Amino acid sequence: MVQINEHFLKLKAGYLFPEIARRVSEFSKANPDADVIRLGIGDVTEPLPPAIVRAMHDAVDEMATRDSFHGYGPEQGYAFLRDPIAAQDYQARGIKVDADEIFISDGSKCDTGNILDIFGAGNRIAITDPVYPVYVDTNVMAGHTGEADDDGRYGGLVYLPVTEENNFVPDLPSEPVDLIYLCYPNNPTGTVATRETLKQWVDYAKANGSIILFDAAYEAFISDDSVPRSIFEIDGAREVAIEFRSFSKNAGFTGTRCAFSVVPKDLTVKVGDADVSVHQLWNRRHCTKFNGASYVVQKGAAAAYSDEGRQQTSGLVSFYMENARLLREGLEALGITVYGGVHAPYVWLKTPSGLSSWDFFDVLLNKGHLVGTPGSGFGAAGEGYFRLSAFNSRANVEAALERFKTAVG
Amino acid sequence: MVQINEHFLKLKAGYLFPEIARRVSEFSKANPDADVIRLGIGDVTEPLPPAIVRAMHDAVDEMATRDSFHGYGPEQGYAFLRDPIAAQDYQARGIKVDADEIFISDGSKCDTGNILDIFGAGNRIAITDPVYPVYVDTNVMAGHTGEADDDGRYGGLVYLPVTEENNFVPDLPSEPVDLIYLCYPNNPTGTVATRETLKQWVDYAKANGSIILFDAAYEAFISDDSVPRSIFEIDGAREVAIEFRSFSKNAGFTGTRCAFSVVPKDLTVKVGDADVSVHQLWNRRHCTKFNGASYVVQKGAAAAYSDEGRQQTSGLVSFYMENARLLREGLEALGITVYGGVHAPYVWLKTPSGLSSWDFFDVLLNKGHLVGTPGSGFGAAGEGYFRLSAFNSRANVEAALERFKTAVG
Repeated sequence: MVQINEHFLKLKAGYLFPEIARRVSEFSKANPDADVIRLGIGDVTEPLPPAIVRAMHDAVDEMATRDSFHGYGPEQGYAFLRDPIAAQDYQARGIKVDADEIFISDGSKCDTGNILDIFGAGNRIAITDPVYPVYVDTNVMAGHTGEADDDGRYGGLVYLPVTEENNFVPDLPSEPVDLIYLCYPNNPTGTVATRETLKQWVDYAKANGSIILFDAAYEAFISDDSVPRSIFEIDGAREVAIEFRSFSKNAGFTGTRCAFSVVPKDLTVKVGDADVSVHQLWNRRHCTKFNGASYVVQKGAAAAYSDEGRQQTSGLVSFYMENARLLREGLEALGITVYGGVHAPYVWLKTPSGLSSWDFFDVLLNKGHLVGTPGSGFGAAGEGYFRLSAFNSRANVEAALERFKTAVG
Repeated sequence: MVQINEHFLKLKAGYLFPEIARRVSEFSKANPDADVIRLGIGDVTEPLPPAIVRAMHDAVDEMATRDSFHGYGPEQGYAFLRDPIAAQDYQARGIKVDADEIFISDGSKCDTGNILDIFGAGNRIAITDPVYPVYVDTNVMAGHTGEADDDGRYGGLVYLPVTEENNFVPDLPSEPVDLIYLCYPNNPTGTVATRETLKQWVDYAKANGSIILFDAAYEAFISDDSVPRSIFEIDGAREVAIEFRSFSKNAGFTGTRCAFSVVPKDLTVKVGDADVSVHQLWNRRHCTKFNGASYVVQKGAAAAYSDEGRQQTSGLVSFYMENARLLREGLEALGITVYGGVHAPYVWLKTPSGLSSWDFFDVLLNKGHLVGTPGSGFGAAGEGYFRLSAFNSRANVEAALERFKTAVG
């Protein structure tokens, strides 16, 4: 008789975003005329840049004639995309990453989930708390955890709190861990890690034979060079880290779908006396369970590296970061303590009057017709915090600030 | 210290298509003027149909303005695609499949690999032999097999030979199995299963608590209604089967990437006393590790269901099937025994003079400058067979037949 993967049954049913949707829908039913502004989910709102639109049209035209048609492409992605990524995102910044260390995919959510395929079941997993829920849930599904407790913390995971108290920099774990998820600029807190912090982690990983899974999906939002954009800026990281990046937020690809992972050829794991190449494992996984990202989409992503494309995506980033600045400063003017929003499109605020994250959610929704994301939804240490996304129109952001005054003022 | 998934190390290094590439490259180096015709890999050659091209252009334009822009879509796919699939591929043929039982993805290779996430480690897996290598390799990676023997057969898998002797219909297994991969129209043999055969398997699955993973990627190539197009044509299949379909071959999407899986809500598995919904497990997996297929691509796929799109994709299918007919009849005229090619774009021939699959490969390459796929590459029971793909231009197919005369005549 078929057996299901019973680890799935450990997953908490009340997932964050469905619960938000339920409360908003209930509110809207009771208040059909209320015009709700959503600053919750981190989804972009602005159109694809013209250079990308043009490249996608051209690619669709190529698919329309026999001579320029493209069937199966390389599973790892086309050179026309891997080459400029390596050259511009890495080599131009003095970071050693070769084009064949880059694996194009259809999304970072997929990549950060799928990467677990190549690792064994016995690894000790460290995640920050609060955290992007996908890291947790994919480990639960893979059987790397026990059951969840009442706070939603799963047995067997090592939670590293990032809160006001430690300035949102996770302390090194007191027990040894093998796989370490780090996301900087951070989702959900919008905070960043310094070179010194990342160096500590790279050194830790080298000393303990760990691997860092570094999610740099928000790298484009870093506004000055004091903040590291890649884990591979850190000496030795090529031997202990994998990096994930995405076109979702900088180029507006949440609905278009393109991302990439970087797995350095220097990254190996001992099996007996042999050094097994993690690059080769991931390559095998990629070729066996994936057939390459859409040609048209890859052409669009490549256009982000043209002169025009760079200018336009940088304009998109600036637009959202101006939203972040308005949110940050507007909230501060109301006396609310705010983190993030300087090098990241998320603002992480302390709920006023010591309200719980969900109580504050309800206040904002009922008094301000505003939707944000309760910090506790990202992990127990997010309790008492609240995330606002800067991905919105300027008009909505300005209106939201007015409503904050009513709801909180 | 990090542990890798050591099951990956069981994978045979000499994978079929790289070995073909190696031999062709060696030949081309020695014979730089030879114009090699490839009838190997099953990749389409004809451009996207005009209705699909137009829909993709329109969708790119939508992404270019704020009001019509699309960010994250539903992970399961847009209703504009799920609805016509349910209506036209299933309901119009009297098959009960609801739109919310359809999960849009970026490829059947992904789906058939990823589906293993929701099943446990203790299942006994049955595959036909020869078979699409992805079914095998993904099970090896997931730890469901032992090591491979010299023929490339992995311990722990139940191989069901499909050869001339059993008319390419797999016998029911003599030992109980839990997950059963069936692909009809079949890759690589190009043969089909009758309703009676599928009914036997559905009955077997019901009696044994098994689940059938039914790959119908080549359904569009079925040329008359005597052949079942979906496992769900069989009474009771909704309780024991999952179906996979793809736009790769019928709409020319190998480089554009869109497919879907059908998981009926009637499909449940007992865990203790509870009936766990496989539909819900797959939905959770889909939402946690996937972010939906590209909007532009889904719009293109949906256009295949317009009147114009249906006519045009059916024209594509007819074009390739005429190639298949030419190959089949041309080879038969040379006295070669040929299977498939009637309801599938693959022709499966018996190698002449009792040559091994790879020896015949070398003869064809050296004497005819033709590349096909050795049957033994799909499994030990494929030894002595050879696959030709009908996905090519008419001119290449006609030239290939002339060369067959030289090489084999």
